[in-house]
Amino acid sequence: MALTLKTVIEGIEPVSQEWRLKVRDYLNNLAIPQGSLGELLTLAEQLAAIKRTLKPSVKRKIVVTMAGDHGVVEEGVSAFPREVTSQMVANFASGGAAINVLSEAAGARVIVVDMGVAADLNEMVSNGKVLSYKVDYGTRNMTEGPAMSREQARKALEAGIDIAGKLVQEGADLLATGDMGIGNTTSSSAILAALSGRPVGEVTGRGTGISNEALENKIRVIQKALDVNRPDASDPVDVLAKVGGFEIGGIAGLILGAAYHQVPVMVDGFISSAGALLAKHLAPDSVQYMIAAHRSQEYGHGFMLEKLGLKPLLNLNLCLGEGTGAALAINVVEAAAQVIGKMLTFEDAGVSRNL
Amino acid sequence: MALTLKTVIEGIEPVSQEWRLKVRDYLNNLAIPQGSLGELLTLAEQLAAIKRTLKPSVKRKIVVTMAGDHGVVEEGVSAFPREVTSQMVANFASGGAAINVLSEAAGARVIVVDMGVAADLNEMVSNGKVLSYKVDYGTRNMTEGPAMSREQARKALEAGIDIAGKLVQEGADLLATGDMGIGNTTSSSAILAALSGRPVGEVTGRGTGISNEALENKIRVIQKALDVNRPDASDPVDVLAKVGGFEIGGIAGLILGAAYHQVPVMVDGFISSAGALLAKHLAPDSVQYMIAAHRSQEYGHGFMLEKLGLKPLLNLNLCLGEGTGAALAINVVEAAAQVIGKMLTFEDAGVSRNL
Repeated sequence: MALTLKTVIEGIEPVSQEWRLKVRDYLNNLAIPQGSLGELLTLAEQLAAIKRTLKPSVKRKIVVTMAGDHGVVEEGVSAFPREVTSQMVANFASGGAAINVLSEAAGARVIVVDMGVAADLNEMVSNGKVLSYKVDYGTRNMTEGPAMSREQARKALEAGIDIAGKLVQEGADLLATGDMGIGNTTSSSAILAALSGRPVGEVTGRGTGISNEALENKIRVIQKALDVNRPDASDPVDVLAKVGGFEIGGIAGLILGAAYHQVPVMVDGFISSAGALLAKHLAPDSVQYMIAAHRSQEYGHGFMLEKLGLKPLLNLNLCLGEGTGAALAINVVEAAAQVIGKMLTFEDAGVSRNL
Repeated sequence: MALTLKTVIEGIEPVSQEWRLKVRDYLNNLAIPQGSLGELLTLAEQLAAIKRTLKPSVKRKIVVTMAGDHGVVEEGVSAFPREVTSQMVANFASGGAAINVLSEAAGARVIVVDMGVAADLNEMVSNGKVLSYKVDYGTRNMTEGPAMSREQARKALEAGIDIAGKLVQEGADLLATGDMGIGNTTSSSAILAALSGRPVGEVTGRGTGISNEALENKIRVIQKALDVNRPDASDPVDVLAKVGGFEIGGIAGLILGAAYHQVPVMVDGFISSAGALLAKHLAPDSVQYMIAAHRSQEYGHGFMLEKLGLKPLLNLNLCLGEGTGAALAINVVEAAAQVIGKMLTFEDAGVSRNL
């Protein structure tokens, strides 16, 4: 039976502190100057403590790329037309997109989910290239009222939870988030502004590369959406419903599901982080299962990561989405797992300790 | 017949500008918002232009870890005793060190070279676990005179050149540098101070983790070595001879050899960057073949990278050496090669361009 949002939120446990200390002790005995593997050690500690083992496996890695359309695109917020969402989903399905190439390079599987694309993807769904959890054919224009109903917001979150549950049951060791949706930096900035109270101008960037003039318009559009809808910062489902997107709800749900099942989850860039922020507001302990893959070029992502309290692994000026930053960082996570799982201690290696 | 240093320095060509432009054009047609894959695109351009193909391969990756001892260790500059150099070489040979684990995770081969360890490694050499290019049993104490003779400095450089040549002949697509040598941050800081003219205190850090007091001593020791030897900044071989190390000379030679054979070479952390700086001073165009793997935690590395004019791929607070940062960044380089080699263009993917 499918898990409800309520069950998952109530069931997320903090990562075992006892295991954290046990793992830290073990890492301090590896035959290296203490701390000299930097963030790899932090990551190894997190992985091992989540999985409650000194030999954490992250072999079976899955990038879940959630796609959805945004009614707000009719306000001219993006450099690309709305059709690009479904065209890119077709590109993912045929294997020629960046997320396919980078996931293959990382040894990860990609699952593409139709959370709410404004087109029928029947053929891709029936031949198994796209998983359908379609909530609707795109959100409504959030400058004229809520982007979706509260019921749709819950449905999007529970879709992500359901997907996480199924993938964990199939043996996934590590999940990673990704997104596709023309207009979804607009929605993500709106979520960030709503949850943080920060002025819209300070959390809004150029997305796929809009002009100065278009950026000013984008900021106005987000402000209008917030003014019209007055999302309640203390109610993340309300924020998602009023200014969110179906794929962002799916990402938040996937993260909550991963945390519930005690599986680490890599958070891609700006849009995925908006989903992560919703997840954190719904269940604060979920953040302990998150790994921030990279810091995006998108203006506002640094602040978003601060709000999440996460330090990104990579900073390569990416701003593509799809899950590409997560795919690229997967090998760093795997390396951290190998460091704890395979390296020798001072004693085992017969190496003298420091003076 | 072995290549001489002179032949290699004179034979290093700049990377083809014509190919750079050709590659850039091609990358601008990939089905992504322009520039949205950030540094991956810069890297893809470098790889493709070096290899003069739109499908650069970096399949056969080799990390060359050069080991050597330093007479200056008797001045109390390190937190670890000198024996640790040979103990760690044994750890590399048995496969339990960080460099083994991280290289395996990256699908790279590790070659360990005895450039000048102060111990006999006969068994490891005869069973093929360690390659011997031993110049001497450790350098001399550089506070009392040159660390090595000019002839030894040339020999160390030509050893690296020879190794690069053999590996390229065997089909290596990508080389990476690494180091092991107790005391070698002291030598690397001295090289940086000598070549840049920057005060010793501004280019010297804690290496494997020394106390404040030991750091003050380390700075005094380096200053003394510079005062006693007066290395000539316009003569990199003189700098290497007076305050360098055998493994640092080997690293510089490996980089020069890679550039001569037009093969990209990843530069690990602080010690490898000291080798890279010598290579740059010997042959300025060699820097076009270098990829800075990461920014080390070691104080002074940021300035060293600036002097090299390189932007590091990772910044994970590593400071272990061995080639670990290079091994960890190899997958990013591979990902960049795949991006150009496998992604579809807007036309091929049937995706609309921006408005």
